[in-house]
Amino acid sequence: MPDTWATSGLDLHLELTGRRVRSGLEAALRDAVRTGRLRPGTQLPSSRALASDLGIARNTVAEAYGQLVAEGWLTARRGSGTQVADRAAEAAAPARATGQSAAQAAGRSTAQGAAQAAGRAAVQAAGQADRLRYDLRPGSPDLSAFPRQEWLAAARRSLSAAPSKALGYGGPRGRPELRRALAGYLSRARGVRADPGRIVICSGFTHGLGLLCQALRAGGAAVLATEAYGLPVHRDVAAARGLRLTSLPVDADGAAVSEIGGAAAVLLTPAHQFPLGVALAAGRRAMAVEWARRTGGLVIEDDYDGEFRYDRQPIGAVQALAPEHVVYAGTASKSLVPGLQLGWLVLPAQLVDEVAAVITLAGGYPAALDQLTLAEFIESGRYDRQLRRARLAYRRRRDQLVAALRRQAPDVQVTGIAAGLHIVLTLPAGQREDEVVSRAARRGLALEGLGQYRAQRRHTRGPSLVVGYGTPAEHAFTGAVARLCAVLSEAAGP
Amino acid sequence: MPDTWATSGLDLHLELTGRRVRSGLEAALRDAVRTGRLRPGTQLPSSRALASDLGIARNTVAEAYGQLVAEGWLTARRGSGTQVADRAAEAAAPARATGQSAAQAAGRSTAQGAAQAAGRAAVQAAGQADRLRYDLRPGSPDLSAFPRQEWLAAARRSLSAAPSKALGYGGPRGRPELRRALAGYLSRARGVRADPGRIVICSGFTHGLGLLCQALRAGGAAVLATEAYGLPVHRDVAAARGLRLTSLPVDADGAAVSEIGGAAAVLLTPAHQFPLGVALAAGRRAMAVEWARRTGGLVIEDDYDGEFRYDRQPIGAVQALAPEHVVYAGTASKSLVPGLQLGWLVLPAQLVDEVAAVITLAGGYPAALDQLTLAEFIESGRYDRQLRRARLAYRRRRDQLVAALRRQAPDVQVTGIAAGLHIVLTLPAGQREDEVVSRAARRGLALEGLGQYRAQRRHTRGPSLVVGYGTPAEHAFTGAVARLCAVLSEAAGP
Repeated sequence: MPDTWATSGLDLHLELTGRRVRSGLEAALRDAVRTGRLRPGTQLPSSRALASDLGIARNTVAEAYGQLVAEGWLTARRGSGTQVADRAAEAAAPARATGQSAAQAAGRSTAQGAAQAAGRAAVQAAGQADRLRYDLRPGSPDLSAFPRQEWLAAARRSLSAAPSKALGYGGPRGRPELRRALAGYLSRARGVRADPGRIVICSGFTHGLGLLCQALRAGGAAVLATEAYGLPVHRDVAAARGLRLTSLPVDADGAAVSEIGGAAAVLLTPAHQFPLGVALAAGRRAMAVEWARRTGGLVIEDDYDGEFRYDRQPIGAVQALAPEHVVYAGTASKSLVPGLQLGWLVLPAQLVDEVAAVITLAGGYPAALDQLTLAEFIESGRYDRQLRRARLAYRRRRDQLVAALRRQAPDVQVTGIAAGLHIVLTLPAGQREDEVVSRAARRGLALEGLGQYRAQRRHTRGPSLVVGYGTPAEHAFTGAVARLCAVLSEAAGP
Repeated sequence: MPDTWATSGLDLHLELTGRRVRSGLEAALRDAVRTGRLRPGTQLPSSRALASDLGIARNTVAEAYGQLVAEGWLTARRGSGTQVADRAAEAAAPARATGQSAAQAAGRSTAQGAAQAAGRAAVQAAGQADRLRYDLRPGSPDLSAFPRQEWLAAARRSLSAAPSKALGYGGPRGRPELRRALAGYLSRARGVRADPGRIVICSGFTHGLGLLCQALRAGGAAVLATEAYGLPVHRDVAAARGLRLTSLPVDADGAAVSEIGGAAAVLLTPAHQFPLGVALAAGRRAMAVEWARRTGGLVIEDDYDGEFRYDRQPIGAVQALAPEHVVYAGTASKSLVPGLQLGWLVLPAQLVDEVAAVITLAGGYPAALDQLTLAEFIESGRYDRQLRRARLAYRRRRDQLVAALRRQAPDVQVTGIAAGLHIVLTLPAGQREDEVVSRAARRGLALEGLGQYRAQRRHTRGPSLVVGYGTPAEHAFTGAVARLCAVLSEAAGP
């Protein structure tokens, strides 16, 4: 039951329930036209592309299109594909151009970014939903490994123990129980200098980054330095708060922090650079901290994948080097699941009140019960246990994936394997990212090229794929790897 | 175990655990000084005021102060009370002036508002925490009536039934299951013209209002009209997004919508004006909608207390009159508890994409599991059942409160009783709000004057109290009413 798909820049909510895929698709398309989500004149994806995207037979899509053309909702012209009919506008609710609206809403020209972000989420949802499809895109843990029963049990214990007042309006920094539990965990497991008074609970990294950017901007900051490759939505979040962006090249030692220059803050992924997968070298860590001390700048440490390191001792948090100059940001999105919407910021003392003031007016607190449940999950040792389990499983996957690639696609260079839930494959000369991604899609495998993570055109790397091995459910992993190797061998072929 | 208190403008996190109140208080104060939350030179509340605020013996506070003076953390001078010692600064982390930071962080001069909001939350937490104290301030339902077991059971059912993909990154509009359930409920119970495609799930009203204000501002809106009396934090949220505010007088027919003038949008509480308690008259509803149609303006309908109406048929939502010109906003904060952080916006079709784009960059989505649980709670009929239970209980409370007031404080005029969880008491001539509130505090009863809800000085009403009868737990209600009547009789006395 995919509930969303994105193709050719569209982002449509489709509810395909039950076995009647064709009638479900027809109803969903009719609904989308009627409510204006699909505007008159909109070009629909080819039946082949949509079928591949939804993981259904091409004929089913072709038949649904045919039916809707017959009903007058769509028009089909030879050579120009299928479009939403003009006369459908009469029934449709008014709708402005989405791209423009997004730009306006973001307060800056971030339409593309927002659409990209929405698109990514949509693609992800569609990909995961479809059992016929394999998904090796990065950014998600294995959702099927979420310990549902243990989580429910923790929810029961924590809600039973909670005083009624815990269910009221909470303070802007989050539940004290969770801040205490996190302070203990982060100091123990990640070397963070954490105390509960410096922690602010947020709804995941995007939310937390937005709060920080707003506090920075309000304090007069103008420029945020980011890594040359990273999630576009993070750059969009900063830009929407009025920060200008610069980007730091990334090499084998991580981000070139010597180029931070006059930025007021820098956003880094020191533990496992996303997406390139390198760790920030010790010298660079020291240099970043020295920069912050010298200039009064702020390091924002996105501890992406920090908990998943396989081949040597975990690298501690940069924050420990200078807690008054570094914000440590973490989430439960990889250690548990993104849908929990739980994140945390460990802040320099002088930023706590400012961030609390921002969140008071921004809203978006996580639910008290969820905060209490995570606190209980950590305090009872279940969080550590789940991490150990996951680390073992992901390490096994990584080993299997890397071994298969070395065997079956020896021309592909594999990097970033020491940690995290993704690796980077540099394609042999002459191959194009988008071609490989398209070829994979035709074989039912969702992949992502490196290019979409690039901050600026001037950053150029050879064509590469960012392969996430956390995403598939356990039973689908071997098949996904086989499919990947087949696609890559085919690409290497004549 | 109060975990926060606010006195004399301070907002301190205190963890008083177990029975050792004095040593807990000492530790909390030491910690606050050490971490810089209490800065050198800060004036502490009198031992009497703090004791009353925390609901502990005055001697306990005096002894704790004495101990910390002896340790050098505090200084006590005859005639100038107790202060944080200067030399404590050496141990304390740097901390800027909170007021200024809040203003900066909010991006505008909303320091007072933000502090007020934070203060309110703090007072609320402290008040509810203290079993020696009665609390008749508005804004909270009876937290002890939250159906914990039913909620947990619904969480178990919905998590067991959810596909794994539901635990991943969701789309910006929220889970389709919840949007479907809400569309059904809102159309049935509140007459809202809802369809799942028009609903965006948010984390409560403040979060949703912020999203709307940002979308409005990005679309070029300049002015938001608000009711002359309302929650200051709502005005602060709009101001922080760059909207200018005007205010509409409120009379017995509700807000004077004829004065909306050139505003781009108007924020109304039609079902039960907060805090004055009147319903927006039919003529005014029509006039608001007519204004929106004529000018292209937007009505934001905060369905405050909409579910709690006792003496006649519920008043349907204004949104039903013009779904393309009205945003309907609701939450589970009163029907269940604020700590769930679940709210929803039913939007005109042309606003859906814009608000979704804003939330994509703002973050703050509610957790997927909570959304699924509420969907299950609604679909299974438990939400309606809980509302019926709550409505009966609150109606009984209201009747008891109003009868007691008529008997024991006949000089006090009682209004706004037809709905909601609060009433307004107009004090007899010659009495001052702050005096009555102080007198009540000395008797262990937390009250709120009307004045703090006033948007502008030009709006003047006689001294009044906003009495919330939802807040106390069932066992404490009769005592709270008796205390209120005693305070009011005393005030009326010679």
